[in-house]
Amino acid sequence: MRPSQRETHQLRPVRLTRHYTKHAEGSVLVEFGETKVICTVSVEENVPPFLRDKNQGWLTAEYGMLPRSTHSRMKREAASGKQSGRTQEIQRLIGRALRAVVDLDKLGQRTLHIDCDVIQADGGTRTASITGAFVAVQDAVAKLIASGKLTQSPIRDHVAAVSVGVYQGVPVLDLDYVEDSDCETDMNVVMTGDGRFVEVQGTAEGEPFSREEMDALLGLAEQGIRELIALQKATLLG
Amino acid sequence: MRPSQRETHQLRPVRLTRHYTKHAEGSVLVEFGETKVICTVSVEENVPPFLRDKNQGWLTAEYGMLPRSTHSRMKREAASGKQSGRTQEIQRLIGRALRAVVDLDKLGQRTLHIDCDVIQADGGTRTASITGAFVAVQDAVAKLIASGKLTQSPIRDHVAAVSVGVYQGVPVLDLDYVEDSDCETDMNVVMTGDGRFVEVQGTAEGEPFSREEMDALLGLAEQGIRELIALQKATLLG
Amino acid sequence: MRPSQRETHQLRPVRLTRHYTKHAEGSVLVEFGETKVICTVSVEENVPPFLRDKNQGWLTAEYGMLPRSTHSRMKREAASGKQSGRTQEIQRLIGRALRAVVDLDKLGQRTLHIDCDVIQADGGTRTASITGAFVAVQDAVAKLIASGKLTQSPIRDHVAAVSVGVYQGVPVLDLDYVEDSDCETDMNVVMTGDGRFVEVQGTAEGEPFSREEMDALLGLAEQGIRELIALQKATLLG
Amino acid sequence: MRPSQRETHQLRPVRLTRHYTKHAEGSVLVEFGETKVICTVSVEENVPPFLRDKNQGWLTAEYGMLPRSTHSRMKREAASGKQSGRTQEIQRLIGRALRAVVDLDKLGQRTLHIDCDVIQADGGTRTASITGAFVAVQDAVAKLIASGKLTQSPIRDHVAAVSVGVYQGVPVLDLDYVEDSDCETDMNVVMTGDGRFVEVQGTAEGEPFSREEMDALLGLAEQGIRELIALQKATLLG
Amino acid sequence: MRPSQRETHQLRPVRLTRHYTKHAEGSVLVEFGETKVICTVSVEENVPPFLRDKNQGWLTAEYGMLPRSTHSRMKREAASGKQSGRTQEIQRLIGRALRAVVDLDKLGQRTLHIDCDVIQADGGTRTASITGAFVAVQDAVAKLIASGKLTQSPIRDHVAAVSVGVYQGVPVLDLDYVEDSDCETDMNVVMTGDGRFVEVQGTAEGEPFSREEMDALLGLAEQGIRELIALQKATLLG
Amino acid sequence: MRPSQRETHQLRPVRLTRHYTKHAEGSVLVEFGETKVICTVSVEENVPPFLRDKNQGWLTAEYGMLPRSTHSRMKREAASGKQSGRTQEIQRLIGRALRAVVDLDKLGQRTLHIDCDVIQADGGTRTASITGAFVAVQDAVAKLIASGKLTQSPIRDHVAAVSVGVYQGVPVLDLDYVEDSDCETDMNVVMTGDGRFVEVQGTAEGEPFSREEMDALLGLAEQGIRELIALQKATLLG
Repeated sequence: MRPSQRETHQLRPVRLTRHYTKHAEGSVLVEFGETKVICTVSVEENVPPFLRDKNQGWLTAEYGMLPRSTHSRMKREAASGKQSGRTQEIQRLIGRALRAVVDLDKLGQRTLHIDCDVIQADGGTRTASITGAFVAVQDAVAKLIASGKLTQSPIRDHVAAVSVGVYQGVPVLDLDYVEDSDCETDMNVVMTGDGRFVEVQGTAEGEPFSREEMDALLGLAEQGIRELIALQKATLLG
Repeated sequence: MRPSQRETHQLRPVRLTRHYTKHAEGSVLVEFGETKVICTVSVEENVPPFLRDKNQGWLTAEYGMLPRSTHSRMKREAASGKQSGRTQEIQRLIGRALRAVVDLDKLGQRTLHIDCDVIQADGGTRTASITGAFVAVQDAVAKLIASGKLTQSPIRDHVAAVSVGVYQGVPVLDLDYVEDSDCETDMNVVMTGDGRFVEVQGTAEGEPFSREEMDALLGLAEQGIRELIALQKATLLG
Repeated sequence: MRPSQRETHQLRPVRLTRHYTKHAEGSVLVEFGETKVICTVSVEENVPPFLRDKNQGWLTAEYGMLPRSTHSRMKREAASGKQSGRTQEIQRLIGRALRAVVDLDKLGQRTLHIDCDVIQADGGTRTASITGAFVAVQDAVAKLIASGKLTQSPIRDHVAAVSVGVYQGVPVLDLDYVEDSDCETDMNVVMTGDGRFVEVQGTAEGEPFSREEMDALLGLAEQGIRELIALQKATLLG
Repeated sequence: MRPSQRETHQLRPVRLTRHYTKHAEGSVLVEFGETKVICTVSVEENVPPFLRDKNQGWLTAEYGMLPRSTHSRMKREAASGKQSGRTQEIQRLIGRALRAVVDLDKLGQRTLHIDCDVIQADGGTRTASITGAFVAVQDAVAKLIASGKLTQSPIRDHVAAVSVGVYQGVPVLDLDYVEDSDCETDMNVVMTGDGRFVEVQGTAEGEPFSREEMDALLGLAEQGIRELIALQKATLLG
Repeated sequence: MRPSQRETHQLRPVRLTRHYTKHAEGSVLVEFGETKVICTVSVEENVPPFLRDKNQGWLTAEYGMLPRSTHSRMKREAASGKQSGRTQEIQRLIGRALRAVVDLDKLGQRTLHIDCDVIQADGGTRTASITGAFVAVQDAVAKLIASGKLTQSPIRDHVAAVSVGVYQGVPVLDLDYVEDSDCETDMNVVMTGDGRFVEVQGTAEGEPFSREEMDALLGLAEQGIRELIALQKATLLG
Repeated sequence: MRPSQRETHQLRPVRLTRHYTKHAEGSVLVEFGETKVICTVSVEENVPPFLRDKNQGWLTAEYGMLPRSTHSRMKREAASGKQSGRTQEIQRLIGRALRAVVDLDKLGQRTLHIDCDVIQADGGTRTASITGAFVAVQDAVAKLIASGKLTQSPIRDHVAAVSVGVYQGVPVLDLDYVEDSDCETDMNVVMTGDGRFVEVQGTAEGEPFSREEMDALLGLAEQGIRELIALQKATLLG
């Protein structure tokens, strides 16, 4: 029995609210249950130095948590003067995930800056960030097309992500904080609309996991991501 | 005529939403028109080293802006590795303002950490932060009393803040971003419930300002802050 | 009765020594009683990146204290690897104060770097810095004119600053360290030669201050700054 | 055909040289072909603050590359003042991998510091580091037992790691630099002696990867790691 | 012929002004011609962690230059966030030089912090710092004895320093900035009152130097330091 | 009697292994007894900004120690975020020593980056670094000539270095760690092939040293460096 009473293959209620803040070209509030993340996309008409004169664009991501988005207050990274290893891992993951579905050659010499800021954390902030950021990128690209800066979309496919894990010996989908703190294995899966993997990151927190458990987890993740992509599509139509 | 069509002495619509996030002991979303700030208060049962064994508490504040809370994206301070001078000025101001109405001797050996994070900026973020943080401190103190950790409130009086300025030669109340970017003088005023000043910070951005202008600005600020404190009271009753 | 036996409206003995060190284009030792600050102005034939090709100049200020300029030794900021929030606040204030009277369009594409370094501190170092730095700027501009790099002075007016405060219930002018450590309200005022304000920064250290106290403090400050500007003029003639 | 002429399931020549440097309690040079990493283990009779009085030990890892271990010189991280996100990811991975097989409760109140420093890089430095560090941990633990500080080994099982990837459409084992720079998918797998997973980190560098490719890669990794663990055993007997 | 018209073995006019600032336990302005350095000694009744419970004292030194103490303005180290390699070298040298003549066992569990801050630079700032700091240490120790905190002086001997160099092929004493910028060899020598060496640091800036040149330089330094120590003694008597 | 049983004028066994790693243009493992340092030279076809358009090259050095190259583990400088004063002193020394024998005008607009990384420390790492780096520079220059980028060598002479010291009252050559930790005077000497000095850095760790001791130390160093340069020549022929 999961603490939240959910079925093993059941996502938390997921909501994607577009146009959440007004300045960014794309701005989405993504909620996976009590986990809430603001994902914005900012368009900069410029590329970083290593891409100058290569006739392509760039997409990069940053991630942060408000100090009291968590159960007990964390130190503010801006005050302690550096981003933690965890923060850097997550923002590198978000950037790779989105770049997997954006054709940088078709983006033009501009940069999409994704910012994912966690307002309230209850497990799964990195996978929620990826799922929400995709919608914000769609909105930002739509503005570029509407303004005539792009003639066709550089987005090749959907991308979404979810966590899965082995909780009390049972593979379950979309871990919340209580499950995450107490699970044996935690796996983050990023997948495209055509059902292929962009990232699979599985870690044994307690006992190592067997090939059979791995297979079960991948199956749960595939199903969950299909649902998330359907929700992205519905949201973008809305 | 103000760009927002407001009267010279008219505040923007102000909203204070309590219990905005779930983990913090106090959590308020404060909105001054399009300016939106999340103010949380975290209680730590500890004091910083310089207060050890002095039998008193402490209150401190930190401030941040989401990178795309502003018209164009700002660098993330956690990524650039330090807080700007502006950020430090603002968080020092917020801390002093709240300490002015909290009796640290009655707080016990604990620390109230205020975090003010700007979700969307449209002028006046520091004064909105002070106004919202006061309500969050009230909620956090109420929890300390409810749990028996405090027997009486250490809060001596209300405190709120507003900006005033000389815009196109006319003193006006509660500058929004358009006015703020183009005003000659900008003044932030922090005042207690009994009508006395905690802080007055006036700066000539363009022309220096005369004693008469100063007097007019202080008058506008006093009126505005009285309205804000009335709103704080109504919110806390609600 | 003030600890220094001064009248409430009496400045400490103020001295401005020009040409204090030999390398800088402007170099002034300013003394307000036992407070001693070296103010230098360095001319750089260049502007910062954000002003490139805008056909104007820039003026910026930095502030520091020798580690043992104070009663007990402070950590050296260069060794601890960052400037404190207080240091940043002060150097931003000095820069704004001087920019208020320098016409950057007439300065040409060059930068005036002001450095204010406190050799001995006894209260009022930031206001002494502004008062001394103005004289150093005058000397640096005179050199630019003498060398033919400027044909007319970009300086529009004098600027000087003083602190005022409520000490033991009485408004007094030019707080020294003993008064400053024990006052209820501390206010720094920056004013131009024509009697208008550039900055007013009042802070209640203890009790909030009333409108009447504020008015009294502003009156004292106006009188003190008139005296300081008269001294600047005499020094520049000498 | 692989650039190195290896079979798809063929490891590079792997060597593990124990007692490579003289000061460390465990010191191993690990070579995977031209990739060379010095792995040392230092025993500190102390635990970090978060483990004080918990009656358990700790194991942590750091990773570095000599500036010219790579094809073109990289900036020295000590000189640039921070460790890159990649470095932090890798050292966190190494630490987790080794902690998975060390029973910290049986280690006593001491810390094992693993340092993996790349002398020469040719792909697969993180998996080589894990494979070599395990042997160094064994040697350090043997010293603790020999000196009477431990009565039984806290090591529960072997652990080793290898990279696999899809190169020119074909799943291959143990990517060297040329393959790594040009592969579509790169996966690092960490496994214990009993054939279970500690970490699986797969990333699509180019095209996303299918479930079938994933299965093939895991199969190659399992075989490779079995060979590496056999080599660890032979080395430790030697 | 030296640019300053001095004889090859002639020091610049050297002045040592005691009690230069009022807060420090020892405070000396040292001038070697146009080079001016404020040397203060601060007594802290504490030792750094590595000396706790070892029943001895410590002496440490820091060095800084005001940004415009030099011909062209240098960046302020506090603003750039770190001390240069040159600064660290110099402050380590000053500390070693003074520790050579202070018996730390007799100092008690306290620390002498030396701060040497260059007000105006014209060559030889590190050797002037050592020469002046010795007098400031004497004054600080005298205060400790006067206050009964020490019963006998921990100072074993005088110490002073001077630079020598090969300028246009000729060994000369006490290089000023013009000579220093253009010399082939630059040597800093630190010596005690009994004529023995504490430090000899010779560097070929241009051509390497022969053993004969080295001998000549050491001879000049010995003579110069004897004069400096005589001046220290006269100053301390005065 | 020296702990190592060596004669007072006897070097430890010294080995220079060329082509130690494969990527660098020059790569030498230098061993002075148990002290082992990897010295690499990387050629960058570029010069630092301060040399742009001056038609000359540059040579610079960095130094590091593996955390467990020493008896007890040192903190990793990359992790603590800065290089120590000692590290900076040493790398500045290595750079000056090598620049003394390289004609930067003949190097062309390129930079030689020397990296000296200590694998195992047993005293004398800085002098071993200089001695080994010279051979690596020779190899890198030879490659530049072989590839036609240079037509003649910019290397003017050999350079090597050794430490000498007064150990238990007796001047000895090439201190190992045991001697170094316990000696009264420690001197590092850098000398060219024609027998002239590039650097002499003598420090009294305990008692100051006399002129006679200094002369004896310089004599030992001259002899030792002659042997080291003979070994460099033999190695380069090999």
